[in-house]
Amino acid sequence: MSTSLGSCWVLVTGASRGLGAAICEGISPLLGPGSVLVGVARSKERLDATAAKVKALNPNIKVITEAVDLSTILKEDFEVLLKGSFDSEHSPPPTKAIIFHNAASLENLTYLKQMKDANKITPYFHFNVSSVISLNAVFMDHVSHLCNGSITVVNISSLCALQPMKSWGLYCSAKAARDMVFRVMALEEPNIRVLNYAPGPLDNEMQVVARNLTEDEEVKSAFQSMKNENKLLTCSQSVVKLLDVLVKDEYKSGDHVDYYD
Amino acid sequence: MSTSLGSCWVLVTGASRGLGAAICEGISPLLGPGSVLVGVARSKERLDATAAKVKALNPNIKVITEAVDLSTILKEDFEVLLKGSFDSEHSPPPTKAIIFHNAASLENLTYLKQMKDANKITPYFHFNVSSVISLNAVFMDHVSHLCNGSITVVNISSLCALQPMKSWGLYCSAKAARDMVFRVMALEEPNIRVLNYAPGPLDNEMQVVARNLTEDEEVKSAFQSMKNENKLLTCSQSVVKLLDVLVKDEYKSGDHVDYYD
Repeated sequence: MSTSLGSCWVLVTGASRGLGAAICEGISPLLGPGSVLVGVARSKERLDATAAKVKALNPNIKVITEAVDLSTILKEDFEVLLKGSFDSEHSPPPTKAIIFHNAASLENLTYLKQMKDANKITPYFHFNVSSVISLNAVFMDHVSHLCNGSITVVNISSLCALQPMKSWGLYCSAKAARDMVFRVMALEEPNIRVLNYAPGPLDNEMQVVARNLTEDEEVKSAFQSMKNENKLLTCSQSVVKLLDVLVKDEYKSGDHVDYYD
Repeated sequence: MSTSLGSCWVLVTGASRGLGAAICEGISPLLGPGSVLVGVARSKERLDATAAKVKALNPNIKVITEAVDLSTILKEDFEVLLKGSFDSEHSPPPTKAIIFHNAASLENLTYLKQMKDANKITPYFHFNVSSVISLNAVFMDHVSHLCNGSITVVNISSLCALQPMKSWGLYCSAKAARDMVFRVMALEEPNIRVLNYAPGPLDNEMQVVARNLTEDEEVKSAFQSMKNENKLLTCSQSVVKLLDVLVKDEYKSGDHVDYYD
């Protein structure tokens, strides 16, 4: 087993399923002894299923799962979570800390002309942007005090961060906002490695929603065609590319890297 | 007087000062008889100063000012505002309706690593993104039922929508999100003209804040140099370019057009 990432602290959001679960499974064989992998998501049951797979793949790492709702969590909860998970008092600090901002939601796949109520829009930005900024700030503060090694921040982005798509106004704009957050951070923190990774079209639950609930018929049928023509990627396929990018470590900090690049 | 835009319904947010006031003053000579220009902002007093200048420039148009707080306004308030302002029952409908989404805020010009509290971040996105989507949807619904002419939507964007800037994480990401919102809308609404206009560095109150409160010293001194070296544009200079783009009407809908393009 090539534990090429060495001893790591890793945090993955949305770790209970889809790409988040695949990141946990994909990265675990690369983690050296003393590593800690923390997966958060809403469903404890599904998180524990991810954790069981991870432990089978690499029994030498510590796996922690925490059921949290990122749409309502407070910074104090993030702080408690990180203090309880990543603690260098009782073991040597790792050589690397990595956070994967993977959690994201699809809501309201309707046309912008129908979005009249700002109070129904804002929770989307709270979960998909503000909560990410918050967790990231708490994570950086916590690990930079304890970990002498490198810090890597991965934002799971999308082609939608760059390209508009009909009836996906909120998703596209929140992904554009997230990419920009991490481009700014790459400038602000020259000692941190920042990657915006667009995983490609995945054969996951989000695609089921996309195929069924996208209001625009043209876009909806494009999603259906991708499924019918077997053009979707498995989550683990995309994770192979993501981990390859991270291990090679040749990207420019803040860059948007697509699966198809 | 070349009233080259014809009979228009025009709505400008942030109309009490800076670029918003300059848009009101700049567009008014281009408006034909029967036009209605509505300016909204928080300060009724400053709005009325804008209105007085507009009336002096073109006595043949109706000017309405409404003091509203876009950070808390409800969609029902938008609906009441638009019904009360743009009404075709008693006069012929205009040939054009234009909305300028100009209002925006600068807050928290600090590094992202300090933004730990999502609940302090989200109001920024509510005002700068959600409220814009909401007002835009209400405006489109209202004018499309009453006005047979063309509809133009102008988002006042920024170079920051495209380029990251240290300690301007929220501003850059909200501007990126807004640009994307209107790029999506340009696809969704092929009959509407959508322009993302970046007005260039303006000699306005926002620049005073930028020069004084930007945490990053390098960025702050760049703002100070622009002021000292007389590289800032007056708001009316930038409005001349904006109105030229609108009157020529040759941009591709959804495009980001900069003052310097």
